[in-house]
Amino acid sequence: MRGILELPPELEVRIRAVDRVIEDALSSESKHLARPRDHILAARGKGLRPALVVLWAWARPGPGGRPDEARDRAATEVAAAAELIHMASLVHDDVIDGSTTRRGLETVNALFGARPSVLLGDFLFARAFGLLAQHRDFGVVELMTDAISAMCEGELEQAACAFSCDETEEGYLRRITLKTARLIAACCRAGAVIGGSSPEEAADAREYGLELGIAFQLTDDALDFVADERELGKPTCQDLVCGVLTLPVLRLLAHESLGPRARDLIESRRFDPESVLWVRSAVVECGGVDLTYERARQCLERAAACTSRLPAGPVRDALTAITRQVIARRR
Amino acid sequence: MRGILELPPELEVRIRAVDRVIEDALSSESKHLARPRDHILAARGKGLRPALVVLWAWARPGPGGRPDEARDRAATEVAAAAELIHMASLVHDDVIDGSTTRRGLETVNALFGARPSVLLGDFLFARAFGLLAQHRDFGVVELMTDAISAMCEGELEQAACAFSCDETEEGYLRRITLKTARLIAACCRAGAVIGGSSPEEAADAREYGLELGIAFQLTDDALDFVADERELGKPTCQDLVCGVLTLPVLRLLAHESLGPRARDLIESRRFDPESVLWVRSAVVECGGVDLTYERARQCLERAAACTSRLPAGPVRDALTAITRQVIARRR
Repeated sequence: MRGILELPPELEVRIRAVDRVIEDALSSESKHLARPRDHILAARGKGLRPALVVLWAWARPGPGGRPDEARDRAATEVAAAAELIHMASLVHDDVIDGSTTRRGLETVNALFGARPSVLLGDFLFARAFGLLAQHRDFGVVELMTDAISAMCEGELEQAACAFSCDETEEGYLRRITLKTARLIAACCRAGAVIGGSSPEEAADAREYGLELGIAFQLTDDALDFVADERELGKPTCQDLVCGVLTLPVLRLLAHESLGPRARDLIESRRFDPESVLWVRSAVVECGGVDLTYERARQCLERAAACTSRLPAGPVRDALTAITRQVIARRR
Repeated sequence: MRGILELPPELEVRIRAVDRVIEDALSSESKHLARPRDHILAARGKGLRPALVVLWAWARPGPGGRPDEARDRAATEVAAAAELIHMASLVHDDVIDGSTTRRGLETVNALFGARPSVLLGDFLFARAFGLLAQHRDFGVVELMTDAISAMCEGELEQAACAFSCDETEEGYLRRITLKTARLIAACCRAGAVIGGSSPEEAADAREYGLELGIAFQLTDDALDFVADERELGKPTCQDLVCGVLTLPVLRLLAHESLGPRARDLIESRRFDPESVLWVRSAVVECGGVDLTYERARQCLERAAACTSRLPAGPVRDALTAITRQVIARRR
């Protein structure tokens, strides 16, 4: 993970190799795709998903008979494919939501419009599956295609319950599991499978990814109310204005004295800057942000516990360190 | 192909089996995906692409050692994947173009909006690659991922030269090759590979698909000016209004007396109903429609010639019959 995690050099090298595979996979003669492609390559995130594939692939010493070179190649290609899938989903999300800023930069949608955004996303999916096909492991492809289906389902569910003040915490958790955690879990499990893990270890990897992914989204949803716009790299309270009710808001809605005003505001679907500011501070005041961080902490504890079967060493250390990084991050 | 082509019963059965694989691949527990999915299943086209995979896969008698059952399964799965990729691209095209009607029915975009359209397309791509992974042939996956990249490139190129009256016939042909013919060529070649064809025969299959695909698009572009809206299943002259200048219009633009008025109209980007009607009749008057059909006929002759190396029999007959059907179709 770019600039966050201290890793031993041999793992750093493996994770950096993913970047080159991504760049190669996206080399295209099309002059029309080149500019939006270069933009998203420059605007890449921390690379959590590919790092998880690589780390889980190397979580065990030499697995039954598979030479290290083959493991390295498989992990690198699947990691690159996972990142391409993630990038595709972000590009498509931004066009669906009409978002103009992400990670402090303009989105492809803002810079180039809907057409290049939809098509660039499709191109990224195609390249991802091209890489996965090289890996020739049907189980891994199935993990990724299932994760994409889950993301689509989560996004649609989120849209279906927009502005619905009767949303439950349970419904919210199911939604963020589909939208965010399932792909992260697929990355971990795919890594474990590539590394020759036992079925129990592969199940641990998946569980780790699910808990980490849920914690990641919880933290994101808390940050939306407490980070400032520059730190966050995108406008704050964007979800709220779009009617996406996250855990901090659900807590506010359940609050005895502050809840009714929040409900009126949300159901009116009219947010002037003043009412957004009011929700922002009310969410903190009612303990919505604290609750969300507390839930994230619980998930991360369970995630860390999922590494207990792994042999002690730098990979296990990195996987537990990631659980601490998730909650400390600012964007 | 649904209700167009007379095929011997054993081939009919194989092509019908593709429909079941498509329906199975799209079975999803998501209630949010169910309605748009059911709509596109009901609005499916003639199934040209899957038919081509199946026909080319069975163009030769028993290939070196591969049992018929394995060939049947591979052809059915790859044919279903090809149709899913085609469906995904149409759903994404309709959202990009804001189209409201296709094949006489409302589009997913019109009925459900941009979000479900983008996400349903992604879901279809994921399911397509899930099927291709089952087939476990990297070469076939590569054919399909390259075809998707080509479609994206063609769509972007088309957008980049919208309303550009200096577009050449050569540029137009390159664009429709990318947008339409490359996927059709990939279907034919994938079928031939599955059927155990020699490299020469696989190259013939690709060439057949390219010529057929170009002819298909040429006919489409001619129909846009001569079919009536009910026959076509979508509004006529839609391309023109969006600035997509097809061969009939390029011929009009080159016409000595009619060209200048057409150029003024197109460059003004303002089409009232009267000026659209004028372009429609001027395109016919200047021979633009005849020229386009003539080019399509030439392509189809070359396509038919690509079947000459195949053994005589019902499959070869069907492949040449398709070349006649393409030009005779009304939508």
